[in-house]
Amino acid sequence: MDFLNYPQPLADLISSLARLPGIGPKTAGRLAFYLLQQPQISQDLAQAILTANHSLKKCSICSNFTDQDPCALCQNPQRDSTELCVVEHPRDVVSLEKTKEFKGRYHVLHGVLSPMEGIGPEQLTINLLLKRLKGVQEVVMALNPTVEGEATALYLARLLKPLGIKVTRIAHGLPVGGDLEYADEVTIARALEGRRQL
Amino acid sequence: MDFLNYPQPLADLISSLARLPGIGPKTAGRLAFYLLQQPQISQDLAQAILTANHSLKKCSICSNFTDQDPCALCQNPQRDSTELCVVEHPRDVVSLEKTKEFKGRYHVLHGVLSPMEGIGPEQLTINLLLKRLKGVQEVVMALNPTVEGEATALYLARLLKPLGIKVTRIAHGLPVGGDLEYADEVTIARALEGRRQL
Repeated sequence: MDFLNYPQPLADLISSLARLPGIGPKTAGRLAFYLLQQPQISQDLAQAILTANHSLKKCSICSNFTDQDPCALCQNPQRDSTELCVVEHPRDVVSLEKTKEFKGRYHVLHGVLSPMEGIGPEQLTINLLLKRLKGVQEVVMALNPTVEGEATALYLARLLKPLGIKVTRIAHGLPVGGDLEYADEVTIARALEGRRQL
Repeated sequence: MDFLNYPQPLADLISSLARLPGIGPKTAGRLAFYLLQQPQISQDLAQAILTANHSLKKCSICSNFTDQDPCALCQNPQRDSTELCVVEHPRDVVSLEKTKEFKGRYHVLHGVLSPMEGIGPEQLTINLLLKRLKGVQEVVMALNPTVEGEATALYLARLLKPLGIKVTRIAHGLPVGGDLEYADEVTIARALEGRRQL
């Protein structure tokens, strides 16, 4: 898209918006005009971005985003410190918390191993994970079932098992409400593999 | 979506993003986490929003967004002042300019008449339009072919025709590359209505 016809500040705003994931130049243009027509919403948004960037840090224990250190979850004495759930993104913590099924603590890797993108163990929070294993009996890998997620789970399992820690992985199979007809073979194979007695 | 599990600044950022058009709570969450992980992009975006809101005003002649008043188009002596093209949004000016077909000047209404939404002639820039008609010979209505767009074009035509100004409307019909089979009846009827001799 050609921004030449726009005044400079508008062209800058459009190109800033177009750098966000999933937002192409057309959507960016639409959003930019909307922001110009809604000064209050724009001010609030700019302020929210600056505040979030300024006040949110990574928790020094679990690396989740937090406005207090350690984060509310790490400080909560009600949570079971013998169970640790390893996730890729901070948003995965929210997804898991919504189920109200897991009572342990979390560890956020901020990514998965991906040699293609130059992400090795040093780029993730694996060192921090190894430092907080005292008293931990089980580590649950809640990583996405992608090639990188699987590789990361196996890598971590190999580090943790020699320390006498039970390493588990969340189940992969048909989603609830899903249909065998439309599921891919790998998912069906995993569902078969993980079958349990009724 | 439940933001209770998020730290406050993050919840604020997500709800600010979710107020943008076409961005639901899920996308807002994804964008918010992206912004947290990319401090430079966030800073640039916040700055671009503030700068655009601060430096872009409506041109006092044509009401288009501009960083100088009058805007570059209104100041350009090369443009034909006898032709005026009326559009709904500033982005329509860009779409029309890309065709390089129109050599006249523009007038941005910033909306169309819509009694349902409480938008009457006073909410649009119709007063400014009536003030700049000196020397204008033709007014081209380049409004969208919606009920409101049509009503606005007819309303303006009724105001302008008694002043001896030629009022035209851009053609509606099959889009280039379109297919009769997939066009709706109203479009085909308009295409027939607007037929020309070969």
